[in-house]
Amino acid sequence: MTQAILTLNAGSSSLKLALYPLTGDRPMATGLVDAIGPAAVFRLKGPFGQEIPTVAGDLSTHAAALQTVVASLRGTHPDLTLLCIGHRVLHGGDHFSAPVTVTEDILALLDPLAAFAPLHQPHNLAGIRAAMAAFPGVPQVACFDTAFHRHHPWVNDAFALPRAFYDQGVRRYGFHGLSYDHVATRLREIAPQLAEGRVVVAHLGNGASMCALQDGRSIASTMGFTALDGLPMGTRSGQIDPGVLLYLMQHRGMSGDEISDLLYRRSGLLGISGLSSDMRALEAANTPEARQAIDYFVFSAQRELGAMAAALGGIDALVFCGGIGENSRLIRERICERLGWMGIEIDHLRNSANATVISSDFARTSVMIIPTNEELVIARAARAALGIGERSVA
Amino acid sequence: MTQAILTLNAGSSSLKLALYPLTGDRPMATGLVDAIGPAAVFRLKGPFGQEIPTVAGDLSTHAAALQTVVASLRGTHPDLTLLCIGHRVLHGGDHFSAPVTVTEDILALLDPLAAFAPLHQPHNLAGIRAAMAAFPGVPQVACFDTAFHRHHPWVNDAFALPRAFYDQGVRRYGFHGLSYDHVATRLREIAPQLAEGRVVVAHLGNGASMCALQDGRSIASTMGFTALDGLPMGTRSGQIDPGVLLYLMQHRGMSGDEISDLLYRRSGLLGISGLSSDMRALEAANTPEARQAIDYFVFSAQRELGAMAAALGGIDALVFCGGIGENSRLIRERICERLGWMGIEIDHLRNSANATVISSDFARTSVMIIPTNEELVIARAARAALGIGERSVA
Repeated sequence: MTQAILTLNAGSSSLKLALYPLTGDRPMATGLVDAIGPAAVFRLKGPFGQEIPTVAGDLSTHAAALQTVVASLRGTHPDLTLLCIGHRVLHGGDHFSAPVTVTEDILALLDPLAAFAPLHQPHNLAGIRAAMAAFPGVPQVACFDTAFHRHHPWVNDAFALPRAFYDQGVRRYGFHGLSYDHVATRLREIAPQLAEGRVVVAHLGNGASMCALQDGRSIASTMGFTALDGLPMGTRSGQIDPGVLLYLMQHRGMSGDEISDLLYRRSGLLGISGLSSDMRALEAANTPEARQAIDYFVFSAQRELGAMAAALGGIDALVFCGGIGENSRLIRERICERLGWMGIEIDHLRNSANATVISSDFARTSVMIIPTNEELVIARAARAALGIGERSVA
Repeated sequence: MTQAILTLNAGSSSLKLALYPLTGDRPMATGLVDAIGPAAVFRLKGPFGQEIPTVAGDLSTHAAALQTVVASLRGTHPDLTLLCIGHRVLHGGDHFSAPVTVTEDILALLDPLAAFAPLHQPHNLAGIRAAMAAFPGVPQVACFDTAFHRHHPWVNDAFALPRAFYDQGVRRYGFHGLSYDHVATRLREIAPQLAEGRVVVAHLGNGASMCALQDGRSIASTMGFTALDGLPMGTRSGQIDPGVLLYLMQHRGMSGDEISDLLYRRSGLLGISGLSSDMRALEAANTPEARQAIDYFVFSAQRELGAMAAALGGIDALVFCGGIGENSRLIRERICERLGWMGIEIDHLRNSANATVISSDFARTSVMIIPTNEELVIARAARAALGIGERSVA
């Protein structure tokens, strides 16, 4: 019998998965069902990244895709037994500062948070419900992107609104918490002294944010109430004057849904470049518009890094992660090149090699690359829920 | 004959004024008509701050108030001749990077900018029109709060929206430009070497923003498209996740006008404290809510200062101005106390004395207080328009 843990990340039209053994960091399989519906694509890989054949099953809904995924996993692991399923959930509100084993009562607490995260929460919860139906009796553990940030000091948890809004949940939750959790854990292993200090982690991917860590705990983040604030992203605006939204409402007659579509899906790198939401495409394109999109991204990152350093009262280390942070030599170099005043100076050879430490030996502030691994954080939470891991689950 | 220049700052229900001679920095009179309408209050002061009697005239409209103001000025200066009237105008759009002598064509350019600044622009322009009607033939010079910022690099002039929005005027204009213009000019007189460096000016008053000066020129500001962004203010929210506005629209059913009222009039220090928009009242109150409002203001100022320093690639000097910046020892001390990492260290005796230089002698970064004087900037622009000043007018 092959006992394992499945991790799921259910998006609006995608299902990302990983299959983990009960110990160790290497997944037995990873996979992605994309464009769920009539034209869905399902790819599965083994522990060394090799392609694994999938069964030709129904991929028209999340629930059907889950069945097809598990059937495919049984192709290589015929005696597979899932002991626990761990789920990425965007929003835990102010209820959860740690993973939780899901019950109907818990779902009832999580459903209303869809109002705060309409583009993610309903799909995340649909994934949990599909897994509960398919695997009755198997514990389902929800891991929240907000949980890692729930100990922010009040000044970085509130907005300057009438107090009732705070009490009603309008807070600066912060996101990408699973990623920051992983990076904080890895930093403690790689560089324990730095991990005790003032660290800014820049999670730069299709979504992008920064987190200010003091002794491994998040004290501030550039994302707030939703995953829209802070850094510009592939298609999201990031920080924008609230007066722009008022203008779009009052003088352009745009509805909430239209403005939401604009700011979530048509802005960011795509909006500025008019070309692509993908940083790799912009780096390759080298058009004036693509260069402006990169310039804006770099300037915003520098600005927000200054803000995060101020929240920490200084900076001992900057850590890059996420698709752009881990892979784009150019973006890392561009962001760092005007940060000498913060003691940041990168070694160009190390940066070109995507080394773990990319700062020069004599720089006051360390700069590192730590690949993130949200699936592993979920798998560990699931193990902990089974009593076989190193972490406690609420 | 007493030849003079009148400066006007027309708000929604107020008219602020100063009467300047043709040379020198000391006004002959300053005054304020407040609560224009049936219960209006008009106070006038002489060059040394002494009260001057006012005539009992009509104060029911801006135009009537202007007549009463001038009649009162003629009480102490019977032979007063106004050579020029200078006006504060919030928004010059991307048309004006300097003051301009107003014509009907110019007004036609300024009127549509009311869409960007609905709470200020219509009143500013009504003030100009009233003055044109009352004093035909007297040149009217418009001085824009946006003008000082019109040379921002593109990355700090744009938002990450589809490009068409930028072309249609959705830009990071920046405000408080008359104040920053004055402070930059004074800094050049007081500390010419510092003025060539990287300076952050914190204009902290009922409205609040910061400006990053490189060699005396604005390269970035915390205010953007409207006067709502950046630092929290007396009743304005400052920076807020755009997702909060989407939530208020989509899940609370609030209209643009309702959200505008919330963010402009019921948020900021008033919203958090539930007590007052006035920092003096909050410092005196010492309730938990008042302390939280102060904490939030201080934290936001530190965050935004970090962002402005990043935009400059470091910081050589921090300058406080505005009602809070010039007068609140506590707020200056609280903001600076966690900025040692930026080389900021204030001397508590100097700070308590509201001295010009309040940093300690050995601090790497200078901290100063430079009282702002927006009226003087307007008066100088008016003189320049008459060919008797030191500055050119477009």
